[in-house]
Amino acid sequence: MNSTQTTTKFIQEDFLLQSDMAKVLYHDYAKLMPIIDYHCHLSPKDLAENRKFENISQIWLAGDHYKWRAMRTLGINEKYITGNGTDQEKFEKWAYTVPYTMRNPLYHWTHLELLRYFGIDELLTADNASEIYLESTRQLQMDSHCTQALLSGMNVETVCTTDDPVDSLEYHQKAAKDGMSIGLFPTFRPDKSFAVEDPKSYGNYLEKLSAASNIQIDSHEKLMAALENRIAYFHENGGRLADHGLEQLYFFPMETYDIESLFKKVSAGQSINADETTYFKFITLLELCRLYHAKGWTQQFHLGALRNTNERMLDTLGPDTGFDSIGDFSQSKALAQFLNELDKSDQLSKTILYNLNPRDNEVMATMTGNFNDGSIRGKVQFGSGWWYLDQKDGMEKQMNALSNMGLLSCFVGMLTDSRSFLSFPRHEYFRRTLCNLLGNDVVNGELPADEKWLGKMVQDICYRNAKDYFNFQ
Amino acid sequence: MNSTQTTTKFIQEDFLLQSDMAKVLYHDYAKLMPIIDYHCHLSPKDLAENRKFENISQIWLAGDHYKWRAMRTLGINEKYITGNGTDQEKFEKWAYTVPYTMRNPLYHWTHLELLRYFGIDELLTADNASEIYLESTRQLQMDSHCTQALLSGMNVETVCTTDDPVDSLEYHQKAAKDGMSIGLFPTFRPDKSFAVEDPKSYGNYLEKLSAASNIQIDSHEKLMAALENRIAYFHENGGRLADHGLEQLYFFPMETYDIESLFKKVSAGQSINADETTYFKFITLLELCRLYHAKGWTQQFHLGALRNTNERMLDTLGPDTGFDSIGDFSQSKALAQFLNELDKSDQLSKTILYNLNPRDNEVMATMTGNFNDGSIRGKVQFGSGWWYLDQKDGMEKQMNALSNMGLLSCFVGMLTDSRSFLSFPRHEYFRRTLCNLLGNDVVNGELPADEKWLGKMVQDICYRNAKDYFNFQ
Amino acid sequence: MNSTQTTTKFIQEDFLLQSDMAKVLYHDYAKLMPIIDYHCHLSPKDLAENRKFENISQIWLAGDHYKWRAMRTLGINEKYITGNGTDQEKFEKWAYTVPYTMRNPLYHWTHLELLRYFGIDELLTADNASEIYLESTRQLQMDSHCTQALLSGMNVETVCTTDDPVDSLEYHQKAAKDGMSIGLFPTFRPDKSFAVEDPKSYGNYLEKLSAASNIQIDSHEKLMAALENRIAYFHENGGRLADHGLEQLYFFPMETYDIESLFKKVSAGQSINADETTYFKFITLLELCRLYHAKGWTQQFHLGALRNTNERMLDTLGPDTGFDSIGDFSQSKALAQFLNELDKSDQLSKTILYNLNPRDNEVMATMTGNFNDGSIRGKVQFGSGWWYLDQKDGMEKQMNALSNMGLLSCFVGMLTDSRSFLSFPRHEYFRRTLCNLLGNDVVNGELPADEKWLGKMVQDICYRNAKDYFNFQ
Repeated sequence: MNSTQTTTKFIQEDFLLQSDMAKVLYHDYAKLMPIIDYHCHLSPKDLAENRKFENISQIWLAGDHYKWRAMRTLGINEKYITGNGTDQEKFEKWAYTVPYTMRNPLYHWTHLELLRYFGIDELLTADNASEIYLESTRQLQMDSHCTQALLSGMNVETVCTTDDPVDSLEYHQKAAKDGMSIGLFPTFRPDKSFAVEDPKSYGNYLEKLSAASNIQIDSHEKLMAALENRIAYFHENGGRLADHGLEQLYFFPMETYDIESLFKKVSAGQSINADETTYFKFITLLELCRLYHAKGWTQQFHLGALRNTNERMLDTLGPDTGFDSIGDFSQSKALAQFLNELDKSDQLSKTILYNLNPRDNEVMATMTGNFNDGSIRGKVQFGSGWWYLDQKDGMEKQMNALSNMGLLSCFVGMLTDSRSFLSFPRHEYFRRTLCNLLGNDVVNGELPADEKWLGKMVQDICYRNAKDYFNFQ
Repeated sequence: MNSTQTTTKFIQEDFLLQSDMAKVLYHDYAKLMPIIDYHCHLSPKDLAENRKFENISQIWLAGDHYKWRAMRTLGINEKYITGNGTDQEKFEKWAYTVPYTMRNPLYHWTHLELLRYFGIDELLTADNASEIYLESTRQLQMDSHCTQALLSGMNVETVCTTDDPVDSLEYHQKAAKDGMSIGLFPTFRPDKSFAVEDPKSYGNYLEKLSAASNIQIDSHEKLMAALENRIAYFHENGGRLADHGLEQLYFFPMETYDIESLFKKVSAGQSINADETTYFKFITLLELCRLYHAKGWTQQFHLGALRNTNERMLDTLGPDTGFDSIGDFSQSKALAQFLNELDKSDQLSKTILYNLNPRDNEVMATMTGNFNDGSIRGKVQFGSGWWYLDQKDGMEKQMNALSNMGLLSCFVGMLTDSRSFLSFPRHEYFRRTLCNLLGNDVVNGELPADEKWLGKMVQDICYRNAKDYFNFQ
Repeated sequence: MNSTQTTTKFIQEDFLLQSDMAKVLYHDYAKLMPIIDYHCHLSPKDLAENRKFENISQIWLAGDHYKWRAMRTLGINEKYITGNGTDQEKFEKWAYTVPYTMRNPLYHWTHLELLRYFGIDELLTADNASEIYLESTRQLQMDSHCTQALLSGMNVETVCTTDDPVDSLEYHQKAAKDGMSIGLFPTFRPDKSFAVEDPKSYGNYLEKLSAASNIQIDSHEKLMAALENRIAYFHENGGRLADHGLEQLYFFPMETYDIESLFKKVSAGQSINADETTYFKFITLLELCRLYHAKGWTQQFHLGALRNTNERMLDTLGPDTGFDSIGDFSQSKALAQFLNELDKSDQLSKTILYNLNPRDNEVMATMTGNFNDGSIRGKVQFGSGWWYLDQKDGMEKQMNALSNMGLLSCFVGMLTDSRSFLSFPRHEYFRRTLCNLLGNDVVNGELPADEKWLGKMVQDICYRNAKDYFNFQ
């Protein structure tokens, strides 16, 4: 039973824009700017090879754990989520789910994406599911809907993928060689390089890293040399960012343990205890950060996810399948100490702090100011609402905290963090939300009705700040 | 000095309903649904015996620690709160306090309750206190104001009380035998069955539980057998829920201690240390949860209260008298591990998570999704704003977090959690707030103006989801 | 490049007042009340000597780390912040920064202060910086802009500074002797009296305290006697408040360590370990609190700042220069235990709890109620939004939490906590925000349109509650 109307236009021209000033700021300023998607999880292969997707389910449902969680909550059988249902069956189950997602960002994303990529302005329900399946799938067979055109159509200028140090970056190279119009750059994500909690996998990883760097890693010093080698390689291939996913940052007095002894133990397949493990991560991360600084990179910390909570599903489906959530870890003290340790020797890179628990917004918003020393505009950034916070309410809270406790004007703005080629309307969503916040402030008399300045500020946040900050080449 | 107007109608037909859509959703959909109050602290005796209260103070002030806290904050002497003041004096002090509670939910509750139960539409102040005391007390002498009629008048279909495993459930049985029109079911609340921090009281409790179950409890295994026996007894008497009040959930590796050794110590009156105590609670709770699952029950966890903070008043007045507050305990990690331990063997029951600290809303809203596996619609629920959060702002924050990070459409909705027979307008308050949220979204263009679908969603949340989820018989 | 308009009037008569009721409440009630600034960091010397400031930078930029952080974030060189740039250069850099602070409270404060003290209603930018520099500096040379007149012009009745126990209070005495029309009272801030983490500085401090109290401090008992002596001295000089800045409150079982042994170690220049250090602080603070109670004082706890995060800048510029931020410490349990320990013997003073992390608002708002026993109206207070929370959003969240979980009507209201003689419009800002909240509630039908009662409530919160609570003489 599914009684929603399907013909009303829902995503209107002024969607989310509640005031005249908001409309002007969005349509005359924000909308004009290209997109720099400085952090996402797109497949560089799919982009460089200009992949054509078989059907809407392949490009839209496969890999989208946001949708999967919603379907599971509604009581849909896993067969139709990640199981052996057909692609069309899966789409129909998703379409059935859509009206039940009202008030979830999925509801807005769904209709923005259908409209912007396929010109479909109906509300998706079980009733029109097969019709929309066929129409969108038909369009996906056209050259206009290969990955590069999908991004160009959204005015994407730059995309930064997320890559392991051992990656060959062959697809980044192919894109460059082919003269792809979208800048495609790698991001250095070396989580595995200090994942010593499992000595066996770690040993295997060290072998790969030795091969990639052509450095035989038989000491922590050599580990750092190999990573430095890969950082240089990423840099040559246009990489200007690093990224780390951590529950929380750590800090220890410098010589708490002997790092080489710990390395020896681990590389011999022996376990080290919890404190030693954390210390190993701490030292390795700290030294990595010094290397990023030497290259003038930006480092990102994604803090506070509680991952792999459901062992039964982890065993069946593997990681990143929708069983991660928001943690409540302590953040402030060790984070300050970690940044301070780098700052003491003036080796603190440009840094973006992302928190997953919104209760930490104010900690992050004020932490940035502790290390802004006038050397670089907006050097330490409070990153845009991430993952579960990537929705209107989450973005507004992030921007309000940033505004009240820092300078919104210096913000480098939005990123998709997405695995999907259809997620770029999230930039539109962010831009509308930003313009609406400013417009409301003008209506309330809390900002002057200075269109020109506010327009500049909007364009800075949507594009120019990121352009200047990351300095891609 | 008390200058408030007393004659204006304050609670109007469209109270809290700011948009046309909100009005339609409330008046044409929400208001029609019966009430399933699946968690409260009403006295089953007072309900089964259809108690007639002596006066308004007896039914309204006695036992209401919300009101007591407000009066103490205003500087009212304890004599007029829980002391030996007369009932009329206490009412007059409360009436004097009411205008000072503006912006507190007490102000809205007070006037909703006076209007719905007594038809009194004046604002209560010191000036009209004695008049209202007499009028409401007069009405309380009528059959229309005995407990069963009070609930029937509010369209209450089902009430679940909160009961100890040793309870005889005689009043639940009496109500069933008498054919009371309101369904009255017990909830299993076995806090005392693992309250081993005080071995002496615990020993006394074990004796009662042995008697109730007719099982001599001389081991932890026997303890679990006795509890299983009582669970079966509750089930026979219509019980389908369990409830637990905890600062936070706990997790230990399975064989950290020998549970039978701990039981021996405790039952011999010896103390066990803090870790052992927590482990005892953990194991007992875990095994209880497996028993709930075997019965198809729903388990509730109320997490995060800091109780009995004021020893001086605890010694004078006992627990639950207004000296509990919101704690800031870590929640996410052990909660995930606890639920995972049950899920591993597919023994995780339907579960409702309630947090008292609103900073944990997002942890709870996302935790639910980790264990929703498609088997039951809305299997793990983020419970409605509880205790201090049971007010408009708290309910909105809970529903916003749930909406943004889960599916509002699958929510089982409101409960009173109250000790008072006059608290049922809290369902009305919740329903108005829900309809208002949805109505505002329509006005802002964030939801389609699909009255039929939104009306269905409202009715699901107000009634049908709970009906299907709990499956009372 | 700086295109903001400079001629539009931005701070209008009804700034922040969105409803008719808000306008009435502000203009006819709130605005009329004098200011009791019961907590600030003004220099008593500058006030008692009626200082005339050389230029606008001296009174407005020197010492204002809020502005410094904004400038550093924008990438302004430290030379123009705390360095050897000229005062006019610094002003010009600040003026350049101002448009970039839109949505930060600095933007509102800046224009409120220019308007209220100097009658300047232009928006400050780089373009009009030198003109405004000259005009404001010209006015500062007039008697109307000496410190006493600046405060009198804002209708300030009482100011409480923040002072060390060893302070002579000579300027408080001078002000009293001179019959200064503004009441100037000291606040007892004894942080250094238990700063035992650095035994050497602590030894030096004990010498000063011995001299000030004329008591040779050779034991913890003597330390407390000396502090009692200074409390009496503060009391004689009008002091009625104490203040403490702590990451979190502490609690230990009473006899965990021998306090005199710890004292001996520390006074001999030896280090004590982390637990012993905290215990020393705990016992000393607890005994101080008993002394405050004996005098009928109010004690304030400012909880949750993470200070001195940036060692490089701390070494260069010293503390309180803009490198402190919001911490995420546990608050509830030890705070409850600490207050309970005092309450057990009925020695809990009037208390104001301020939290720096807004995630703790609800913990604080409910903690107050645990110790309100009817003896004093609003005895334990949830303090107004502090430091980073002293902005519209922060104040609204504090007042909403207080309203929902306590009694807004009993609130003692606003304080500047400022180092600047130009910060008093923050009271206006608070009052407008308060009136606006109440007005919106009336518009939404959530409060009755009872102007007289709401007006009384507003005046209580803005002035009369503080007047009655602190009882300055």
